[in-house]
Amino acid sequence: MSDNVRLIEVKENILDDNEKVAAALRARLKEEKTFLVNLMASPGAGKTSTVIQTTARLKEAFNIGVLEADIDSMVDAEKVAATGITAIQMRTGGFCHLDASMVGDGLDAIGSQDFDLILLENVGNLVCPAEFDTGSALNAMILSVPEGDDKPLKYPLMFSVCEVVLINKIDTCEHFDFDRARFEEGVKKVNPSCTLFDISCRTGEGIDAWVAWLKERTKAHNA
Amino acid sequence: MSDNVRLIEVKENILDDNEKVAAALRARLKEEKTFLVNLMASPGAGKTSTVIQTTARLKEAFNIGVLEADIDSMVDAEKVAATGITAIQMRTGGFCHLDASMVGDGLDAIGSQDFDLILLENVGNLVCPAEFDTGSALNAMILSVPEGDDKPLKYPLMFSVCEVVLINKIDTCEHFDFDRARFEEGVKKVNPSCTLFDISCRTGEGIDAWVAWLKERTKAHNA
Repeated sequence: MSDNVRLIEVKENILDDNEKVAAALRARLKEEKTFLVNLMASPGAGKTSTVIQTTARLKEAFNIGVLEADIDSMVDAEKVAATGITAIQMRTGGFCHLDASMVGDGLDAIGSQDFDLILLENVGNLVCPAEFDTGSALNAMILSVPEGDDKPLKYPLMFSVCEVVLINKIDTCEHFDFDRARFEEGVKKVNPSCTLFDISCRTGEGIDAWVAWLKERTKAHNA
Repeated sequence: MSDNVRLIEVKENILDDNEKVAAALRARLKEEKTFLVNLMASPGAGKTSTVIQTTARLKEAFNIGVLEADIDSMVDAEKVAATGITAIQMRTGGFCHLDASMVGDGLDAIGSQDFDLILLENVGNLVCPAEFDTGSALNAMILSVPEGDDKPLKYPLMFSVCEVVLINKIDTCEHFDFDRARFEEGVKKVNPSCTLFDISCRTGEGIDAWVAWLKERTKAHNA
């Protein structure tokens, strides 16, 4: 294991009010000039690949850290760390989402004050993570083309809480019945101001546009 | 809306012991000679397509009913009903999994005693549904090739509670880095007796083998 990766166990905090903990984290991160992005998606949509593609393009501009959450295993944090980025694996031990208290533990473990940008990969799940404010300044989600264009109808809360949706695996459109216009219409119905980017972590298509957007958002937050 | 489809709202039962409710349902279904299959998967793995492919091949042999669970929308039940199969859409209103009490409501709504085989499509989620016994006689899951071969490492409980895993979208292997042997190794590590079938709901590949297996299991349960 490389020395820029570490595993921590995180537990649900059932005593504190999550909204209060999240608001306090957001204030602390604003003070520290650290932009925290909460990245949510289904299992296998490409969260870790997106993290790797994004950090590769922004690591000259910013000090970047990554928090990886999973029920079990630390393969994602190891993948990220192998690219030279500092990563913490947060093991939830069966828990289906992150709450603000868990994220606070992750931020303490990585030393959030040392970073301009922290990408937080939530548990792979389109349901529960949408219900909990993590303290991040930006909620982003990834929907991969093979999952289908009807997901905004079925998981409306997730699409309504995210400011930006990345449509990943866009290079595989021809192999799946994915109607891009129908998908966007579904997203806009629950979230009219949502920004969408078409990306492919495999081909690199569209990543630059997303990264340019994220760079501006990070600079604006940390100014 | 066709007359073989109906929407019901289901609510969590926080008063009863889920294990007891599930055991009672299982006994009732055994008595009724109704084989209940709990089908779990990530969003977009192909649950509804698998239901449609399966019922198309078994509707001559059995009276089949379908229970579709979703956070919102009734598109899945309508898709199934359009093929002539009786379907109930169970709307969980934001809830991330089914418990046995919700399934009991679905079985009452469809009239379980009239069916030999009922396919229950759980909420699209690899985490929470694995934790709740639904009263089914068989837990089955679908993993689609685009999700990746590392999922047993990350969602071990789901793979450990399922007797059978269908690897869907097998026709798209060449477009994704999916190592079939590595995936099977991961499954067998958490669940050595698990049965795997490679299928494609798009091409029809492998469906017959899965259906033949399910037919035998249904007959054995209802004998």
